[in-house]
Formats: sequence, C-alpha cells, structure tokens
Amino acid sequence: MLQNKVIINFCPTGMVPKKKHTPFVPVSPTEIIEQTHEAYEIGITIAHLHAREENEEPSWKPEIYNEIFDGVRKHCPDLIICGSTSGRKFPEFEKRSAVIELMPDMCSLTLSSLNFLRQASLNEPDMIVQLAEKMKNFGVTPELECFDLGMINFGKYLIKKKIVEGPFYWNLLFGNISGFQASYSQIGAAVSEIPQDHFIGLAGLGADQLKVNASAIAMGYNVRIGLEDNIWLDKNKTKQISNLELVKRTHRLIKINQKTFFKPREFGELGFYNHKRNVG
Amino acid sequence: MLQNKVIINFCPTGMVPKKKHTPFVPVSPTEIIEQTHEAYEIGITIAHLHAREENEEPSWKPEIYNEIFDGVRKHCPDLIICGSTSGRKFPEFEKRSAVIELMPDMCSLTLSSLNFLRQASLNEPDMIVQLAEKMKNFGVTPELECFDLGMINFGKYLIKKKIVEGPFYWNLLFGNISGFQASYSQIGAAVSEIPQDHFIGLAGLGADQLKVNASAIAMGYNVRIGLEDNIWLDKNKTKQISNLELVKRTHRLIKINQKTFFKPREFGELGFYNHKRNVG
Repeated sequence: MLQNKVIINFCPTGMVPKKKHTPFVPVSPTEIIEQTHEAYEIGITIAHLHAREENEEPSWKPEIYNEIFDGVRKHCPDLIICGSTSGRKFPEFEKRSAVIELMPDMCSLTLSSLNFLRQASLNEPDMIVQLAEKMKNFGVTPELECFDLGMINFGKYLIKKKIVEGPFYWNLLFGNISGFQASYSQIGAAVSEIPQDHFIGLAGLGADQLKVNASAIAMGYNVRIGLEDNIWLDKNKTKQISNLELVKRTHRLIKINQKTFFKPREFGELGFYNHKRNVG
Repeated sequence: MLQNKVIINFCPTGMVPKKKHTPFVPVSPTEIIEQTHEAYEIGITIAHLHAREENEEPSWKPEIYNEIFDGVRKHCPDLIICGSTSGRKFPEFEKRSAVIELMPDMCSLTLSSLNFLRQASLNEPDMIVQLAEKMKNFGVTPELECFDLGMINFGKYLIKKKIVEGPFYWNLLFGNISGFQASYSQIGAAVSEIPQDHFIGLAGLGADQLKVNASAIAMGYNVRIGLEDNIWLDKNKTKQISNLELVKRTHRLIKINQKTFFKPREFGELGFYNHKRNVG
C-alpha cells in the first residue's frame, strides 16, 4: 500500500549487537524499555523487540519478555508491540513460540530458511505454519518477514490457505548477502509481488539501512529502523549511532519528503492491536 | 554509475511554465542568468537551459541563447552548460541545432518520439542522428534524454554505431503519463539497462520530482531539479516553489544521506567540458 503516512517500526536490540560492539544497544529490560520510551516520545508506530539474557545472549524466556512488554505498555500505552519468534539460537517450537502466549500485538514470522553472511537460519515449513496458527489463537498479527522473493511467495501461500489472515504487514529486508539487494530493481521486484492493500515496511541491513529508509519514505513505503539492523552512523563504520538518533533522522526524512508519521493508535485501530487487548 | 557524489542538473525554465503559471520561473536572459548564478552559489553541477522570446514562448534563436550562455559563463565560469535542442515548438533541424554552434558543453538529445499528456513530441530517427553528429562536430556531449525503455535502447544503438561517443550522461525522466512511472520497479528496470560506467541522472515530473530526487540521492544516482519539471512545493498544488528552494532542498537531502555534491569542475574534467572550451 502506498501512503503519505509512514509507519516507523523500531527495532532497538535484535539478536546480534552486544555492548562490546556498541555501547548504545539496549540489552536489559530496563534499557529496552527506556530506549523504546524515548523513541515513542519522538514518534514510532511499532516496537519490534527481542529479549536478552543477563549475559547479553538472545533469550526466549517469557519472564524476560514479560518484564519488557509490561514496562513498554506502562510508558507507551498505545504503541504496537511486536515480539520476536526467531529460532536462530533456540530451535524448539515451545521456546520460539513462548512469547506469543504473552499476547503482544504482533510477532515476527520469518517465511523460509535462509543464509546470513556466516550462518543459516532454519525455518522449516511446518514450524512456520505452527507459529502462524499459534499467533492466530492468541490474537497476534504476524509480521511477515522476507529476505527474498520465495519468502513473499510462501507468505502469499499461507494467506491463500487462510493460515495467515489480515490485516497484513510485510517487513522486507534488503542487503543480506544471500538475499534481496538494496537496488531499485530488487526492491521494485519485491514490492510488486505484494497485494496493493497490504502494508509494506522496508528495512536495510548495515550500510543499506539509510539507503533503504530514505528511498522508502520518498517512494511511499514504511520503514524499520534501529540497531538490530545497523549500528553505524556512516558507511565507513567510523562512528556508532544511537537508536534515538536513528529515529530522529527518520523524522527529518519524513518532513523533507512532505509525509507524516503514522501514529500507533491510528495504525493499531486498523486491526493491528491484539484482538484480546484493551488499549483504553 | 553508483556514486557518493551527487550531480545536480539544474533546469530552471523549460518550455512550459510561464509567469502566469508561477512568478518564480525565469524567462528573460537576465532572470535565467541571475537564478542560475544563485543556484551555482549554493551548488549545482550542470545548468540545463532553455531560451524564451520576449513573449515567453520557447525560442531557438542563437542571439538569445548566446546572451544567456555569456552571462552564465561570466558569473559561473566552471559550470557545465547544457542547451536544449527540443523541437516541440520548431521542428526544423536548422532551428533545433542552432544552439549547438554556440558550443555549450552539452546539449539535450531526446532519443525518440513520445507523447506527453496533451501533445506529441516528434523526434524522428534521422533527426536524432543529425543532432548527435552535429554535437560531435562542435565538441558538445549529448545529454541522453529518456522517458521510456525504448529510448534507452535507441541510445545504446547510437553508442554501438559510434554516432554517440563518451563520456555518457543519461537523464531519465519519470512520471510522464505515456512513459516511465516513478516506481521502484520502473526506475529499477530503467537504470538496469544502462552500462555501469555511465552517469545516470533521475528526474521526476510534477509531484514525482521530490519522490524521484529523494530516492535517487538515497540510492546513489544523480538528480535533475528545477521549475522545468515541477512548479509546486506540495503534491496538492497549494504553494509554488522557487528554483532556489528546490536546490536548497536537494542539498539538505544530500547531507542527510551522507553524500556530497559533485562540483562542476570535477565533473567537467571527466570529459564533459566542451573539447574546444578553455575553462582556465
């Protein structure tokens, strides 16, 4: 869907960056809550959140996710909360899907197995279907994550089979070495595959984050922004950037492109709030 | 060619906008010289110039072009000057090609006939070849103007036949109803057709100007900017914009995208200055 309002999907933590990589990455629940709250004050629509253990390793544990979600809900009552179901560190369905039971508004659903630069990420078809079905049972909307064309295709297959039902939010990620590249033609090929009435967010990995964000805003799409995808201010990796600066830069781009920011409540009320949630 | 330096191709006048459409359009030689000089002070690489009669109608007359070029050269000694060979108002080869004899650095070469919203623009194959050959004789580099894929194809044919020789600068225009649309996929299809070591500028017509400029800068391409393509600040056409504001906005976009501006001398010395010109 082409819009004049830009959805900002904030991904402050992810699974990879640690304090040794950048002091700006929030890893404890308190840090994640604080940075999400700061970003919310400037303006974000969705918070895409990952939990971490005390040793900074990715976590699936409901008690950690719960602490994060509670804090975010307290400070940002109408923000859309999205939890990660990534299986890169813990492949078991029970662990990957535990976060769904906490009933955030959305959870990530990666639509195939894929390679990153140094490792594979396994998402077998059965696993994807089980995650999707559990989301549906808990009133959670999947964030349809795609790194290549076949993943969009599998998403459309799940929609056709009514395993995934609306509303639809696609997050397309560009710049992974074994996936979509951040060129006009590959972004064009990707967005052309998605039905016109679905929401599409575009993300760029590493140095491609700015490129993808800036062009997406210009072209009428939505963006994902945060240290999960990129920790550097500049292409030459000389200076690190904070989540807050990334959000501020996004708002400057929205303004110069004569767009406005999609407010969370406005977006949530299109059907993205958890059906069982009372936003007040 | 993908770059971190952005060529700004400034088109202040064109053939269409008149004072009744916008008070900001420069039509007299003095106005064109002044606005080009102002833009040059902020930073432009190429000035793509059209002459007008005293009644504001498009002109082919060498004495008017000469006055403009002389004034621009005086105030902006190293700026690349590009003259228009458009035949929309005067189809004869002698008239269309008269500007070439003034030996600007570049002249426009539209690579096929096409339709605009309300009229056709006729560029027969023979006319294109004659214009290209005359340019070569006078040391002028053609600005390869394309509104659709077939025009790129004809440009590549002329290059293969050595009727057009390097260096190569393509100006691709998006948003004409009977040509390329300003989408990721169509811009992608266009730029993918052009050899990797050629320069590519992207232009957007009307409300697509901002969209194309902002995405082009993000994605590593060059831009054309000016009232020739768009006279409105906003999509809803409530407020007119000046050439100067357009150039300033382009520099803001360049800065936020962590790029720099391609200085005219630096660009000219890549072979874009008229071979018979002494820039000093």
